[in-house]
Amino acid sequence: MSLEKPVIDDVGAEIFALAARIYPICRSITGNGVRQTLREIAAHIALDIHEVPTGTPVLDWTVPREWNIRDAWIRNARGEKIVDFSRSNLHVMSYSVPVQQQMSLAELKQHIYTLPDQPDLIPYRTSYYAENWAFCMSHRQFEALRDETYEVLIDSSLTEGHLTYGEYLHKGETSDEFLLSAHVCHPSLANDNCSGIALLTQLAKRLAGVRTRYSYRFLLAPGTIGAITWLARNEDKVGSIKHGLVVSMLGDRGGPTYKKSRRGNAEIDRAMVHALNQSGLSPAIEDFSPYGYDERQYCSPGFNLPVGLLQRSKFGAIPEYHTSADNLDFISPQALGESYRLITDAIGVIEGNGVFRNTVAKGEPQLGRRGLYGAIGGEKNAAAANMAMLWILNLSDGEHSLLDIAERAKLPFAVVKRTTELLAKHDLLKPVAGA
Amino acid sequence: MSLEKPVIDDVGAEIFALAARIYPICRSITGNGVRQTLREIAAHIALDIHEVPTGTPVLDWTVPREWNIRDAWIRNARGEKIVDFSRSNLHVMSYSVPVQQQMSLAELKQHIYTLPDQPDLIPYRTSYYAENWAFCMSHRQFEALRDETYEVLIDSSLTEGHLTYGEYLHKGETSDEFLLSAHVCHPSLANDNCSGIALLTQLAKRLAGVRTRYSYRFLLAPGTIGAITWLARNEDKVGSIKHGLVVSMLGDRGGPTYKKSRRGNAEIDRAMVHALNQSGLSPAIEDFSPYGYDERQYCSPGFNLPVGLLQRSKFGAIPEYHTSADNLDFISPQALGESYRLITDAIGVIEGNGVFRNTVAKGEPQLGRRGLYGAIGGEKNAAAANMAMLWILNLSDGEHSLLDIAERAKLPFAVVKRTTELLAKHDLLKPVAGA
Amino acid sequence: MSLEKPVIDDVGAEIFALAARIYPICRSITGNGVRQTLREIAAHIALDIHEVPTGTPVLDWTVPREWNIRDAWIRNARGEKIVDFSRSNLHVMSYSVPVQQQMSLAELKQHIYTLPDQPDLIPYRTSYYAENWAFCMSHRQFEALRDETYEVLIDSSLTEGHLTYGEYLHKGETSDEFLLSAHVCHPSLANDNCSGIALLTQLAKRLAGVRTRYSYRFLLAPGTIGAITWLARNEDKVGSIKHGLVVSMLGDRGGPTYKKSRRGNAEIDRAMVHALNQSGLSPAIEDFSPYGYDERQYCSPGFNLPVGLLQRSKFGAIPEYHTSADNLDFISPQALGESYRLITDAIGVIEGNGVFRNTVAKGEPQLGRRGLYGAIGGEKNAAAANMAMLWILNLSDGEHSLLDIAERAKLPFAVVKRTTELLAKHDLLKPVAGA
Repeated sequence: MSLEKPVIDDVGAEIFALAARIYPICRSITGNGVRQTLREIAAHIALDIHEVPTGTPVLDWTVPREWNIRDAWIRNARGEKIVDFSRSNLHVMSYSVPVQQQMSLAELKQHIYTLPDQPDLIPYRTSYYAENWAFCMSHRQFEALRDETYEVLIDSSLTEGHLTYGEYLHKGETSDEFLLSAHVCHPSLANDNCSGIALLTQLAKRLAGVRTRYSYRFLLAPGTIGAITWLARNEDKVGSIKHGLVVSMLGDRGGPTYKKSRRGNAEIDRAMVHALNQSGLSPAIEDFSPYGYDERQYCSPGFNLPVGLLQRSKFGAIPEYHTSADNLDFISPQALGESYRLITDAIGVIEGNGVFRNTVAKGEPQLGRRGLYGAIGGEKNAAAANMAMLWILNLSDGEHSLLDIAERAKLPFAVVKRTTELLAKHDLLKPVAGA
Repeated sequence: MSLEKPVIDDVGAEIFALAARIYPICRSITGNGVRQTLREIAAHIALDIHEVPTGTPVLDWTVPREWNIRDAWIRNARGEKIVDFSRSNLHVMSYSVPVQQQMSLAELKQHIYTLPDQPDLIPYRTSYYAENWAFCMSHRQFEALRDETYEVLIDSSLTEGHLTYGEYLHKGETSDEFLLSAHVCHPSLANDNCSGIALLTQLAKRLAGVRTRYSYRFLLAPGTIGAITWLARNEDKVGSIKHGLVVSMLGDRGGPTYKKSRRGNAEIDRAMVHALNQSGLSPAIEDFSPYGYDERQYCSPGFNLPVGLLQRSKFGAIPEYHTSADNLDFISPQALGESYRLITDAIGVIEGNGVFRNTVAKGEPQLGRRGLYGAIGGEKNAAAANMAMLWILNLSDGEHSLLDIAERAKLPFAVVKRTTELLAKHDLLKPVAGA
Repeated sequence: MSLEKPVIDDVGAEIFALAARIYPICRSITGNGVRQTLREIAAHIALDIHEVPTGTPVLDWTVPREWNIRDAWIRNARGEKIVDFSRSNLHVMSYSVPVQQQMSLAELKQHIYTLPDQPDLIPYRTSYYAENWAFCMSHRQFEALRDETYEVLIDSSLTEGHLTYGEYLHKGETSDEFLLSAHVCHPSLANDNCSGIALLTQLAKRLAGVRTRYSYRFLLAPGTIGAITWLARNEDKVGSIKHGLVVSMLGDRGGPTYKKSRRGNAEIDRAMVHALNQSGLSPAIEDFSPYGYDERQYCSPGFNLPVGLLQRSKFGAIPEYHTSADNLDFISPQALGESYRLITDAIGVIEGNGVFRNTVAKGEPQLGRRGLYGAIGGEKNAAAANMAMLWILNLSDGEHSLLDIAERAKLPFAVVKRTTELLAKHDLLKPVAGA
């Protein structure tokens, strides 16, 4: 398998362009914003779009009513729109019930969220399961509000409808699956998670022409309830998931940050850590914790799937998180390209991993006779170039995988893989079936 | 179980008062000093006092003759008592045989112990198993001794008699036992171990009104030979001891110091380490070593009981150890109260520990529907308060105990316990029988 | 077993003297240099010298043709010998084919090796398996070569013959073996490995009079092909090798450096690490890697023998490595004596190790009654001297070896061993058969 060609092309720029295209859409956990987003994605890959009716029981949850919004504003006493949904969809708390009403400043303040410590930013707020309505605005604007009568409008609907998610399967040589999952429920937040949606789309698109060992399942679904809905409808498929990544916030300059799966030492954990350590970036590796994105669901004890979380900056740990500062200026083609490369590197490890047996197990094979070894002995550093061969031959006892060897020998997996292929061509290594 | 009430009362002051009351008594490994001490304890708890005859074989040992002392002094040539047992019982080496004799300074010096490096302090010395006699004095006094004839008297007896120890059992819901053991063989040494005797007495007294899961066995016995005697007479009970602590030197401002049981990772070790790490003090955690107090006997390979040692300063490591400086000024109600709290915190962990299973194992349960979750999503720190719930639900797969979860989540055990009870009330957790 | 007497004698000086005696010989992987070296060794120990014919298949290899050299030089246009094999056998690349020819400077330069970064040193080069010829010289000399016609002579032969190696077996009480292996294929390099050949010879000589538990097999063979040849001819004996050391570069002032066996925690690894940590030197302990000396063959996956590598400086890591600076000035009797002591200390651990069971497992045995314990209790440091007894008694539960105990108690193995013998004499310990 090779995803190296896509690295040569300007994948970061294409991811950025797609993220920019879906950035303006007002997404929530249900509704037309999700549909519109998935239609954009479907222009790139053959996405299956699923609609699940309100009221459908899914694990411990129930698919909620569908929320849609057409317009929203606050008008002051002079009729001026001082807050306008059409300027930023963050201005309305997601799942706000409809309202059209005149009210005093005191009443209005009960329905306003701000960030006093970041007075220029609009916060992102939701209230999916408690009926409520609210506006979000900058704290500067909030402080300037005059004591007068306001008119507020939220032209939304909360009705029987559907939850929408998208799914794409790249079929590999086996039915064992690699799950790649991103949430599609956040409105105009560029990093969280237009970046993830766009990156997975470009990855799926590039995978289409590639023969892979594993099948790759891409899931673009609203956070929490979307993953729960997919799990509820696919309990029989869960056993096929051998590796998985939740992705989020892949476009900023921080991190990269990898949170291990609940298992802690799954192959995806080791592959991702290897890719990160080889990246030349300054990765942070974290143990699993039960707070985060949809790895919470995949790693719940009844599933316990080998699914980790890849981000650049860690969610919640940066000032831009869940604010209007998470805009297109906050993400860059370069960071998106790096993130893409990390994921394809980890996929490369998973695809290429395997266990081999040294056919000349007793003593070293005579590499020189086969033209595999530096011919002039005694050179101080002659062996440096041969270390990969020696490590692979020494550890290929049928019990160590190529990733084990790369870790032990502190060599890039790609070098181990390439050298293994060379040794196998000379019949010095044989793959161990079923390992 | 709750021992929190005793923490509110002034337990440190009560422990100090009892320690002060028993401090003047001249204890040894046998004799009336031990009896008098145990009678003082029996005024607080229903202590069983056992008398074991001299000559009784106990494991590899034999109960020694009983030693009692009425008076002792050294008189100079002018008949002045220059050393007087009635002023400090440390002046006479414990188990000194009787003597009344005139002798030169040179002869007398063969029978005097001092601490040249701590010239103002009287050392504490014993000779239980080699017949001998000696006086202990400050090195300053020793150096001032004039070359004249001295008269020495030790009015002691070493006769067939008994070894005496006290035992108290608080019965819990099960016959599984928690052993708490302190030595009662040291004369006027306040920290080592009037502090331990007094603390265990106050703990037993407060436990009396409390329903517990475990039965609590309190053992107040002379060091080494007392523990060996108890073990010899209770070999059939040893299997019931699931947890244990030897206590010593609980009243000074050092440490706290915990020495793990020989097993190294017994539940008591983990519970005590958890309590220490949560205490806000600066604990030292040490691996087991075979030198110390009666954990030496409990952790001998034929028993290998899960019994650790709790001290403040480490024995032998401070200048006051085994000298007249280990007096009532060296211990304080505050330090004793802190030590009491550490022990009851560890008991709280042991009593409250258990294994639960998440009844909604697949995906997260919908906490919001049950009123268990912050209703407004998107708040940067909303999840902080929910972390205990998420950790408990994620790790309650029937294999992790609450203490496992507290350690992994870096949360106080009490928070984990309280949250577990809340989740169990909502039927989200069920206890795993027998775990 | 005791090798302590040899430490008292001036073993370092005797090793140095033998190393100096074999230093001038021109060794290679075959030929008369090896034979002459082994004859020198045979003057000290009853060495078996084996001759294996060219063409013999050995594992994946074939015994090569035998190489011998009588003379070699380069003459300038005036007929002056500017390079002369008789002055340093490093001047000729090992296994150079015969040549006698006139040539221009440009042609000659195709056959010269130098060390530009170490311009005063002659490098050591070999070409065992590619037919070629070359001279080695200092870079200063190389740069001074004038553009004239040179005559070169290499009077060597590469013919059907034999590979020669030496073997010596010290028979112990059991047929379980301890392998000690050094290479004999390097020409005038004092540290690498005249030091190893000489040290093993002196060790074998001193062992001759000593009763040992293990049998000690000494193997002096050319590097790589020699070990492979021995392994091929002794596959049935390999199972008897319970411990082993490859030695190399034992005479310089660096290190000591120990590279663990592939198993990583074999008894030889633990014994050698213990000896190093007790040595007062500044040892470096390294994990196994598949590059180095003949541990590469012994630790190939089909054998996986518990064989480590002991050196002073690490090969390749010092400027003198594989140059004319590795001469007799580079090694010293003192360093050789220290290396000898490290090896005999590790042998002492392996010989003396065993598992015992405390016969008084319940409680501590009464050591005082048996005269084993300080009689005066209460002394602050009385117990220090008794710690070895207490550790041994506490851990002798049939599952901990004496080496386990020494490691855990942080005591020298010799102290643990001596104390074990004392306790066994008092019937407090019994050996566990078969452990």
